[in-house]
Amino acid sequence: MLKKWVPEVCPEEKKLKERLEAAEHRLSVLQMKIKEHKLPVLVLVEGFGAAGKGSAIGAVIKNIDPRFFNVATMSAPSEEEKRRPFLYRYFVQIPEAGKFTFLNSGWADEICRARQQGELTDEEYLEKVDSVKRFERQLTDNGYLVMKFFFHISQKEQKKRIEGLLEKKDTAWRVSAHDKWQNKHYGECLDTFDQYMTDTGMPAAPWYVIDAQKRKWALLQALELLCKGIEVALQNESIAVPLLQNVFPLKQMPKLCEVPLDKTMGEKEYREELHILQDKLGRLHNRLYRKQVPVIIVYEGWDAAGKGGNIKRVAGALDPRGYEVLPIASPEPHEKARHYLWRFWKRLPKTGHIAIFDRSWYGRVMVERLEGFCSDNDWQRAYNEMNEFEKELAEWGAVIIKFWVHIDKDTQLARFEERQRTPEKQWKITEEDWRNREKWDAYETAVNEMIQKTSTVYAPWHILESVDKKYARIKALRIIVKELERVLE
Amino acid sequence: MLKKWVPEVCPEEKKLKERLEAAEHRLSVLQMKIKEHKLPVLVLVEGFGAAGKGSAIGAVIKNIDPRFFNVATMSAPSEEEKRRPFLYRYFVQIPEAGKFTFLNSGWADEICRARQQGELTDEEYLEKVDSVKRFERQLTDNGYLVMKFFFHISQKEQKKRIEGLLEKKDTAWRVSAHDKWQNKHYGECLDTFDQYMTDTGMPAAPWYVIDAQKRKWALLQALELLCKGIEVALQNESIAVPLLQNVFPLKQMPKLCEVPLDKTMGEKEYREELHILQDKLGRLHNRLYRKQVPVIIVYEGWDAAGKGGNIKRVAGALDPRGYEVLPIASPEPHEKARHYLWRFWKRLPKTGHIAIFDRSWYGRVMVERLEGFCSDNDWQRAYNEMNEFEKELAEWGAVIIKFWVHIDKDTQLARFEERQRTPEKQWKITEEDWRNREKWDAYETAVNEMIQKTSTVYAPWHILESVDKKYARIKALRIIVKELERVLE
Repeated sequence: MLKKWVPEVCPEEKKLKERLEAAEHRLSVLQMKIKEHKLPVLVLVEGFGAAGKGSAIGAVIKNIDPRFFNVATMSAPSEEEKRRPFLYRYFVQIPEAGKFTFLNSGWADEICRARQQGELTDEEYLEKVDSVKRFERQLTDNGYLVMKFFFHISQKEQKKRIEGLLEKKDTAWRVSAHDKWQNKHYGECLDTFDQYMTDTGMPAAPWYVIDAQKRKWALLQALELLCKGIEVALQNESIAVPLLQNVFPLKQMPKLCEVPLDKTMGEKEYREELHILQDKLGRLHNRLYRKQVPVIIVYEGWDAAGKGGNIKRVAGALDPRGYEVLPIASPEPHEKARHYLWRFWKRLPKTGHIAIFDRSWYGRVMVERLEGFCSDNDWQRAYNEMNEFEKELAEWGAVIIKFWVHIDKDTQLARFEERQRTPEKQWKITEEDWRNREKWDAYETAVNEMIQKTSTVYAPWHILESVDKKYARIKALRIIVKELERVLE
Repeated sequence: MLKKWVPEVCPEEKKLKERLEAAEHRLSVLQMKIKEHKLPVLVLVEGFGAAGKGSAIGAVIKNIDPRFFNVATMSAPSEEEKRRPFLYRYFVQIPEAGKFTFLNSGWADEICRARQQGELTDEEYLEKVDSVKRFERQLTDNGYLVMKFFFHISQKEQKKRIEGLLEKKDTAWRVSAHDKWQNKHYGECLDTFDQYMTDTGMPAAPWYVIDAQKRKWALLQALELLCKGIEVALQNESIAVPLLQNVFPLKQMPKLCEVPLDKTMGEKEYREELHILQDKLGRLHNRLYRKQVPVIIVYEGWDAAGKGGNIKRVAGALDPRGYEVLPIASPEPHEKARHYLWRFWKRLPKTGHIAIFDRSWYGRVMVERLEGFCSDNDWQRAYNEMNEFEKELAEWGAVIIKFWVHIDKDTQLARFEERQRTPEKQWKITEEDWRNREKWDAYETAVNEMIQKTSTVYAPWHILESVDKKYARIKALRIIVKELERVLE
C-alpha cells in the first residue's frame, strides 16, 4: 500500500494555484449539498509525525461554515477511555447528518503505535483490524462518508521538520517524544503503517496516500480527494445496502409459540431462592468490580410482561455505585442524526460496572421495523450490525445477558385490564399499549426473527416465562449468577 | 480465522438425520427460487486434502436438478491457462443466472499451494489477495452469491483417511503427492490457510469453516449454510450496490470539446511514416512473442470516425498467427446471463499475442447506459469495475492501449451522406447510425465521463483526431510502437 505507492507529479506553481482555488470553491459548494442531503462526513487524517496533518485540516476547514464541522485532536486514551471498548472514544465522535468531523489521527495511529511499541500480539492486532473493518463498514453502510488520508513524508523530510520545530521555543512543544522515536525507527514504522493500510483498505473506505513533502500540494490532494469522495457519496445516497451473510455462530432457539408458559413458583420457594440469589449476586458484584469485568444486561419483552419488577429484583442485589439502569425511549433529534447505535455506545458502562438496559438497540428490529421508523433495508441489516456491536463488547470482555420477558396474549389483556381498574396503576397503561397490542402477531413475527438471528454464542437470548412473575425473576437471577460465576471462575 | 475457530457441537444421530432431511428439502425448494429469480450461485469448496470435499459436493447436488448446476474440479493450471491471467480459468467458470457452479477447490487452494511451495513472494501473494478480493466483490456486486467453504479436518484424521485410501487399489489413486506432503506439513499449511482466510474474508463473501471430521455432519453444515446464503442473496436481489471511491491513480484528460480537430497529414508524409511504423511494429511483434507479452488494443469512437481503416493499418503490420481482431456486437443470451465482463475474459489473448477489440467492454457506459440496457447503478459502478478489470490485465503484464477515434458532428454527417451516395459503401450505414447520431450530445457526455473516469495511469485513453484519417492512423501506430518499445526495453 504505502511502500508500493507512487506519488503523482506535483503540478507547477501556477497550475497548482488554479487547482487549489477551484477545489476550495468546489468544497464550499459541496458543504451546502452535504447539509441539504444530510450526509455525515468523517475524515480520518493519519500520517507521519510533522507531516502537516494539523495545518492541512486547518486549511481545509477554512472553506467550511464553522457550524458544520468539528475537529477532534485525539491524544493517547485517558484512564476513563481505557475502561471502555477500544472504539468507544472514536464512535462517540462520529458526526451528525450534514456535518464533518475531522480526526487529527485516530484509530489507525493508535493501533500502529501500539504495534510499533510491541504492546499488541499478532492476534490482538488482527482482532483490532477486524473491529476497525466492521466499524468503518457499519458507518459507510449507514450512509457515512469515511475518508482516510495518510500524510506521507520521507525520513529525511521528517527529520528536517522536527529539527526546524525544535529550533524555536514557540514550536518546540509540538514535537512529541513519539515523533522523535518515529523518525529514528522510520523504516519499521513504515512497515507497520503499510501493513495496517493493506489490512484495512476497504472498497467503501479506501486509504488515500497524500504526498506531504510540499504543504500546498498536500492540501490540494486532500481537497480534491475530499470533494471527489463527497460527490460519490451523494450519488450513493439513495442506494440500499446489501444484507450480509451471517458469520457469527448462532445458538438454535425455539420460536415463542413453542415455549410453554405454564411454569410457576410457590411463594415460599420464591422468597427463599430470591434471598439466596440476591445474596450471591451482591457478592459477585464485588468480585466483578475487583476484576474489572463490565456487564451488560438487556431487557426486552411484551408490554406488561413484568420487565420493571424483574429489573428491580436484580438491581436490588447490587451496590448502587456500580450499576445503572438505562431506560431507553425514542431517540432524541441529535441521536437520530447519527448511526442508530451511537446512543448505546455512549451509554456503555465502564469496566467493573453493570449496565441494565430497559429496552435497547433491539428497538430497531421491533418498533422501528413495525412502525416504519427506518427503511426495510435498515432493519434487515440491523441483525448483523447488532451481532457485530455485541461482538465488540464481548471481545472487550463484557458479559452480555439478553432477556426476552415472555407472556401470552391473554395474560397481557388481563394485566392491561387490571391496570385500568386499579387507580395507582393507571399511569402504567396508555393508548399506545393498546395500539401495540393490536399488532401482537406482527410483533411476534419480528421477535421470533430477532431471537433467531441475534442469539450468537457470545450473546444469546434467554426467554423468561413470565406468566408467573416470580418464576421469571428467579430464572433471571439464576442466569445472571451463572453467567457471572462462569466469567469469574 | 481457522486457528481460532471453534467447531459447533455435532447434534446427536436422530437430530442430525432430521436436520439433514429438512435441509435437503429446503435446498430442493430453493433451487426453483434461484431459477425464478435468476440468481447465479458460485460455491467454492476448499479445504484439506481428503477432507471429503468431493463427496460432499456429490451429496449436495443430489438435491438439485442436473440442468441447474455444474461441477468443476480444478486441477493445476494447464500450459494454456498459465498463459492467461491468473483468474482467467476461474472467471470463465462462473455460472449463468439461475444456476450453480461448484468448484472443487479453486483460487484459494491455488494461491495457498503456491505460497506453501515458496513460489510466491510476499508481495506477489498480496497482489493475488487483492485480485481475489476484487474478483469476489465484482461477482457479489453484480448479483452473484459466492459461498466459500473450508472443509477442516485434523492432522490425525487426515492421516487416517489417507492411509485408508492407500490401502485399496480402487482408491489409492485419489491420494495425491500433495495430500501426503500436506499431511506432513500440516502445521505450516494450517498457517497459510488461516492467513489466506483472514486476508480474503469479506463482508459479502465470508469464509465458512466446516467441521469435516464426520461426513454427515459436514454435509449438514454445508447444506444449511448454502440454504441460508441463498435466502440472504434473494433478499438482496433488488438492492442497488453503492458506488466505490476510486482508488486508481488517474491521468488528467481533456474534454472532447477541448480537443482541436484541425490536425492533418500530407499524403507523402503519411506514406513514408506508415511504412516506417508498420515495419517497426512488425519487428516489435516478434519480440513481443519471444518475451511473451500480451497486448490489448481497444478501439472505441464515433460512427464513421474511421475505426475500421485505422485497425486495418495496425493489423496489416502484424503476423496473422499472433493477433486477432475481435469485433464486439451485442451480447448473446448466454453472455447476458453472466457478469458483463465474462465475454471479454473469455476473449483474452494468450501471452505473446495481440488482441484488437473493435468496440469493447466500454459499451457498458455508452450504448448500454444510453439505451437503458442496464440499470443506472450498473453503469455507474462499471467505471470502477473496468478499472479493476484492466488492473488485473496490467498486473498480468499486459500492455493496454485504448483509443477514442474522434471526429466532430459535421464530419460525421458528411461521411454518412457520402456513404449513402456511394453504392459500395451503403452497407456501412444503417438506420441505427442515424438514430445514434440524434443522441450525439448524450453520447458526448457519456464519452467524456468514461474518458475522465477510466484513464488510469496503467491504461489511459488516447484520443485520435480522425477528421484526417491519415493523421489518426499514424498517431495510433506511433502510440502503439512507443508503448511496445517501452515494455520491451
